[in-house]
Amino acid sequence: MMKAWEKNIRKVVPYVPGEQPNKERMIKLNTNENPYPPAPGVAEALKNLDPDRLRLYPDPACTRLVDAIAKQKGLKPEQIFVGVGSDDVLAMCFMTFFNSEKPILFPDITYSFYDVWAEEFRIPYETQPLDDDFNIRKEDYYKENGGVIFPNPNAPTGVEASQEMIEDILQHNQDVIVIIDEAYVDFGARTAQPLLEKYDNLIVVQTFSKSRSMAGMRIGYAMASPELIKYLNDVKYSFNSYTMDQTALDLGVASIEDQAYFEETLHKIIQTRERVKLRLTELGFTFRDSRSNFIFASHKSCPAEELFEKLKEKDIYVRYFNKPRIHNYLRITIGTDAEMDEFLSEVENYLKESGRL
Amino acid sequence: MMKAWEKNIRKVVPYVPGEQPNKERMIKLNTNENPYPPAPGVAEALKNLDPDRLRLYPDPACTRLVDAIAKQKGLKPEQIFVGVGSDDVLAMCFMTFFNSEKPILFPDITYSFYDVWAEEFRIPYETQPLDDDFNIRKEDYYKENGGVIFPNPNAPTGVEASQEMIEDILQHNQDVIVIIDEAYVDFGARTAQPLLEKYDNLIVVQTFSKSRSMAGMRIGYAMASPELIKYLNDVKYSFNSYTMDQTALDLGVASIEDQAYFEETLHKIIQTRERVKLRLTELGFTFRDSRSNFIFASHKSCPAEELFEKLKEKDIYVRYFNKPRIHNYLRITIGTDAEMDEFLSEVENYLKESGRL
Repeated sequence: MMKAWEKNIRKVVPYVPGEQPNKERMIKLNTNENPYPPAPGVAEALKNLDPDRLRLYPDPACTRLVDAIAKQKGLKPEQIFVGVGSDDVLAMCFMTFFNSEKPILFPDITYSFYDVWAEEFRIPYETQPLDDDFNIRKEDYYKENGGVIFPNPNAPTGVEASQEMIEDILQHNQDVIVIIDEAYVDFGARTAQPLLEKYDNLIVVQTFSKSRSMAGMRIGYAMASPELIKYLNDVKYSFNSYTMDQTALDLGVASIEDQAYFEETLHKIIQTRERVKLRLTELGFTFRDSRSNFIFASHKSCPAEELFEKLKEKDIYVRYFNKPRIHNYLRITIGTDAEMDEFLSEVENYLKESGRL
Repeated sequence: MMKAWEKNIRKVVPYVPGEQPNKERMIKLNTNENPYPPAPGVAEALKNLDPDRLRLYPDPACTRLVDAIAKQKGLKPEQIFVGVGSDDVLAMCFMTFFNSEKPILFPDITYSFYDVWAEEFRIPYETQPLDDDFNIRKEDYYKENGGVIFPNPNAPTGVEASQEMIEDILQHNQDVIVIIDEAYVDFGARTAQPLLEKYDNLIVVQTFSKSRSMAGMRIGYAMASPELIKYLNDVKYSFNSYTMDQTALDLGVASIEDQAYFEETLHKIIQTRERVKLRLTELGFTFRDSRSNFIFASHKSCPAEELFEKLKEKDIYVRYFNKPRIHNYLRITIGTDAEMDEFLSEVENYLKESGRL
């Protein structure tokens, strides 16, 4: 029998996070983590952290971390908002800025959290189909709407939208908030940050999870006009004043201060990615050029789900989405060279074994 | 000129967190932090944390921490929900369970976040006046409503509601969710946890911030029926799957496993509190018996705001609320014995100086 209190519960279709297998010997290419450790200064900051300080509340304004990010980006601290991973930042953005009766717009193939947040916050939305090459069609975003959001590069396709297209979409959407979700931008794509000077309705969101090897610390941030950042902070302070714990603040600052290590790791991942692209092509895969730390690939004769399962048997985890239009693709995170070699050799073995190569 | 996008922004009156002064030599009795460091195992866990692991996403289900709390509380892991401080847990509860057209009910003098969350999530609410001795009047909670929440002990009064009163309120509210916010319960009050067996609409919320000296790590939790915990997790997973970072998970487990240190610290704080109560009475203060780590006191002749300002000049910070009914009270957090002695002696000095003693 249904209890009376049941009827006032917010029931949502829960988002299912990517598998987090935890095996001794596995190759984990399924959640776009960075294969390299965080900057050496992060280990140092961890060692220097005074445990006695943990009895005190952290700085609710996250001043040191905000200042460090602002400095690195050449922005004012009033233009930075920090949250518990970019998911927290994006959720706060949805809650703060998407309150129109008109639907917000985002691509049909995109980060799988957008429709989940829209449902959770009861925001009307309308997805806009990518073209057959997984490109955004800018004209789809000319119609009246309650806001626009898309990742650049897009997830899980890895396809980058040109700056011209982004600016065109901004020009056609000056009455709503436009969010560019740049979780993967550091791996060789162009950031929309310079457009902040011209468009005070633009929000650019980035994260420490991928390019800074700190998925485990949950640090994301938004860059926007001081006005939008103030609205975001007002909502955040009304939700949970102290979202960032002391360790996240200390370790985040240490990470952002080591630009050399950051660039070195990115360089290594990009090198590996380009090499893997060549080999995947030789093996019969097709994919759009990826500017992220993953490749979204389809094989000419081996179904994605089959390969996904076969790799899993070998403790190699990639991501498979059983969804319309992308059910024949695998999203392969770029790991170390050694990991990618093992991955490629298992793929080759299976394609040979199954008579496809 | 107002921008078009302005009209769809969620505008909230931002919550103002308690002052976080950061002076070399100060006595900080204003945000109910614990004066003693976290358990020794927490320092140990910090030292043992492998920085390389931070590149990976943390366990979204927080399994080890949930299991450790469940074990310590004698509950099943399915009865525990963990969040970024009890503020995050409570915000998630408001979003998940308070979706009725009828107003939720809470006391007029209470934790200052309840009305902020209600405003933020657009939940109708009605405050119920405490009696003149700051007691909850149970009859106020018999009327039709969309949910009930109050802290026990209440904040900022420190007054404990009896278990009989809590059960009476539960008996009159079986069709809605009832939340007992037990941020301060460990300092000598009785928990409503045993009532979970009888009432599947009850949620008990606790935190590591006060009694476990870990305000800086942001760890709170809810205890309830597996059914309610599942609804909470569904909403959490739809907001941000990975809310707890790796350090919070590791340090939280280390803290909960050291029950002996926990009890020892509580004992010390309670001893100090009882001694401070006696001395405050001698100095002309009145207050209700506090079962928390603070005393909410009023002086017979010295206005609270005046004393607040004078203490601040001496770098002693207590909390003053410029609000109806409580504007002549100070909330004084219990610090170490040495801190309280200095506080008491400055109070005595000022009362003498101003001719009130």
